[in-house]
Amino acid sequence: MPKASEEQRLDLINAQQRLRAEGRSAVVVVTGVDGSGRHRLVNALTHGLDTRGVKVHAWSREDAPGSDRPPLWKYWQGLPAQGQVAVYLDGWYAEPLDRALRGASPDLSAIRQLEAQLIGHGSVLVKLWVERPLAEARRDLRKRLKREARDPTLSEQRVLAAEDGAQDQLDALRAHSEGWTMLSGKAPEVAADQAREALIAAMSAPTPPVPVPGHHRNRGAQALAALDMSAALSKKASNKQLPEAQAELARRIWAARARGQSTVVVLEGADAAGKGGVIRRLTDPLDARLFQVVPVAAPSDEERARPYLWRFWRHLPKAGQLLIFDRSWYGRVLVERVEAFCRRDEWQRAFDEINDFEAQLTDHGAVVRKFWLHISPEEQLKRFEDRAETPHKRHKLTDEDWRNREKWDDYRVAVEDAVARTHSAKAPWTLVPANCKRHARLAVIQTLIDALAPD
Amino acid sequence: MPKASEEQRLDLINAQQRLRAEGRSAVVVVTGVDGSGRHRLVNALTHGLDTRGVKVHAWSREDAPGSDRPPLWKYWQGLPAQGQVAVYLDGWYAEPLDRALRGASPDLSAIRQLEAQLIGHGSVLVKLWVERPLAEARRDLRKRLKREARDPTLSEQRVLAAEDGAQDQLDALRAHSEGWTMLSGKAPEVAADQAREALIAAMSAPTPPVPVPGHHRNRGAQALAALDMSAALSKKASNKQLPEAQAELARRIWAARARGQSTVVVLEGADAAGKGGVIRRLTDPLDARLFQVVPVAAPSDEERARPYLWRFWRHLPKAGQLLIFDRSWYGRVLVERVEAFCRRDEWQRAFDEINDFEAQLTDHGAVVRKFWLHISPEEQLKRFEDRAETPHKRHKLTDEDWRNREKWDDYRVAVEDAVARTHSAKAPWTLVPANCKRHARLAVIQTLIDALAPD
Repeated sequence: MPKASEEQRLDLINAQQRLRAEGRSAVVVVTGVDGSGRHRLVNALTHGLDTRGVKVHAWSREDAPGSDRPPLWKYWQGLPAQGQVAVYLDGWYAEPLDRALRGASPDLSAIRQLEAQLIGHGSVLVKLWVERPLAEARRDLRKRLKREARDPTLSEQRVLAAEDGAQDQLDALRAHSEGWTMLSGKAPEVAADQAREALIAAMSAPTPPVPVPGHHRNRGAQALAALDMSAALSKKASNKQLPEAQAELARRIWAARARGQSTVVVLEGADAAGKGGVIRRLTDPLDARLFQVVPVAAPSDEERARPYLWRFWRHLPKAGQLLIFDRSWYGRVLVERVEAFCRRDEWQRAFDEINDFEAQLTDHGAVVRKFWLHISPEEQLKRFEDRAETPHKRHKLTDEDWRNREKWDDYRVAVEDAVARTHSAKAPWTLVPANCKRHARLAVIQTLIDALAPD
Repeated sequence: MPKASEEQRLDLINAQQRLRAEGRSAVVVVTGVDGSGRHRLVNALTHGLDTRGVKVHAWSREDAPGSDRPPLWKYWQGLPAQGQVAVYLDGWYAEPLDRALRGASPDLSAIRQLEAQLIGHGSVLVKLWVERPLAEARRDLRKRLKREARDPTLSEQRVLAAEDGAQDQLDALRAHSEGWTMLSGKAPEVAADQAREALIAAMSAPTPPVPVPGHHRNRGAQALAALDMSAALSKKASNKQLPEAQAELARRIWAARARGQSTVVVLEGADAAGKGGVIRRLTDPLDARLFQVVPVAAPSDEERARPYLWRFWRHLPKAGQLLIFDRSWYGRVLVERVEAFCRRDEWQRAFDEINDFEAQLTDHGAVVRKFWLHISPEEQLKRFEDRAETPHKRHKLTDEDWRNREKWDDYRVAVEDAVARTHSAKAPWTLVPANCKRHARLAVIQTLIDALAPD
């Protein structure tokens, strides 16, 4: 294995030390076709570093975890915390490489988003491509397999069986994703040396200015104003319709489970909008094994150490579950925007990040439905006063709730923006007039019934 | 599904609220044989609670995760953080139940340890057994399967095929594990009611005083004093022997990987004892996919929210990996004891906890080796001064390091105690004279070679 010189090693360790001191993390992706020598390069890199706090993610493509979750899930799980280094062998380029070897052109949009989020979070991203012309790599592989008298593994088979046009697709893949450091697979010593230099340079560079998305026009959305806030349901009607709807929802959730289809529900709304009551009516008829409610509050320190969406990716269940978020990733463009808990460029970027995240869920087959429970300021005041007077509800009311009321108009603008910029056919918003709790509860359940296939 | 009365529901929510306020967590285990109605009971319980922050762990025995890790790993993964409630269907009684149904008597020692650690952490533990005589459950199951004209699932098969003596073993299992609330499987409404009451009572009870282990005699261990601190290795000898030993270690680690056997290495030692250098020599010859170094520093808030050993359980790799802990769970009985970062009863209990944890690793087939790198106070001082003078080493030296030196004798007693109380044939300590770094590095590698089978 090509070893680092003592001087280079020192530079690496120093750069790693600076990374820790600055609370940044580094992500290294090493890729190339089988036979290019990328395993050797991962070793050369790892051994140049202080291995404490370095994690290598090198699944063979056959035993990669999480096949029942969206493809990028497994990479999100492994993202390093502050001060740590993650080295991915192929990483999120494993699937595009496979497609290229089959002569097909890959879709890189989700990958671009992931990389943009890493950079936006302040992580160092180093992408190393160990180049070896496919024809040469195949020739070498054949020789080696003959010499070692062993069966090719599945990934080697893919290289050996590469389709016509695969080399063009590999070139295109590299050309269409940014920031590669190209290394020669023919000269391992030189490649290892260059890889280490690239890593040192990247870790030593000052945090790059984060690209700010172009200022978007105010779309003047008035969806909330158009809501019929008088919508109401009588107790009698509710007593009849709610149990029927609940039973139908339970049937459809079981059917989704049988199909292996997940359902992701986002519940947002002002304080006292009635999210808890909706969740109770949603889950009451369901078997406890079918659903999971994720309450979203302040992030933990492990969550703060990683790109924003990590804390939601980690909750994604196996296929076939109903996942209900009580508040969600929309916090970024609602409370964090309004209260200035994040920078302006962060929440402005978040719209694209969220659209991409939800597209990955729906592309994987999940049903995604988002609800804004809308109440009037007068109704909220009434509910606050009620909470203040009811012993077992008093804990739900905090000083913060009263403060948030003062920013009603800011929240309203933020909600309009969020809805306008993240509404899509596959992950639609439903704005629910929620001054009448009975109406709101039935409306949410009915929307979910319509979203789920009957069998 | 049996519903809670509004009053009982209120009591439950209030108790849950108190739990959150006190920063405690609750663990509920619901078990019984198939056909006893324990699924229904889980539902009844879950729906009585505020489902936000409640997680139900209900794998069928066939699709339980982590079959390549020690059996209790999957339950540790699901332990709730402060304020959360975890409901386990069967949970860690799944395996003992299976054994009982086969007419065999289960080993409950690891389970007792897990439950003791939950209670020691201040968690509320509620154990519910839905009782149904095996003969009745089997009769009902047969009827139901006939009526629904379906194949029995694997777990139903186990009940239907229960061996002679299974009922006795089930009774014995219950009798030999403490704290069960027995519920009648014949009266689901009553059982659900009683289960909720049991949960309310447990969550409302004041934190019980934690049992303090009996004062253990000072064993007067003098293992460190007996060490030959003059042990040294010449540069010449090291240049010859170290690469040979490294190559042999690499061969054996590959062989262990092929066997699917994990290796867990614990490195402890005073500041500047040379742990980093040992780790580098250990990992240098190894493929990056074979090992993982886990540096152990202050716990994250997610780690503090759970029983102490959770932060180590979470790192256990799939079978076949080498896992190196740079400091470890021995922190509890070393730095936390000496610096009073934990209570006396906590570190006193830790010896048993650690022995149990390591036994679970070795029972699962892992090789466990623990090293104390021992240096003299004079040698440490020399190394500190060297660090202070070397720019790229300066970051390794902190004020804390100087302070720790003042407690040299306290640490010495703590080390002697730890070694005396946690040394075992399967998870032995090796005390390594480390004034000579070359000697220490080779000694650790040689010990690991001897611990690993050649093929």
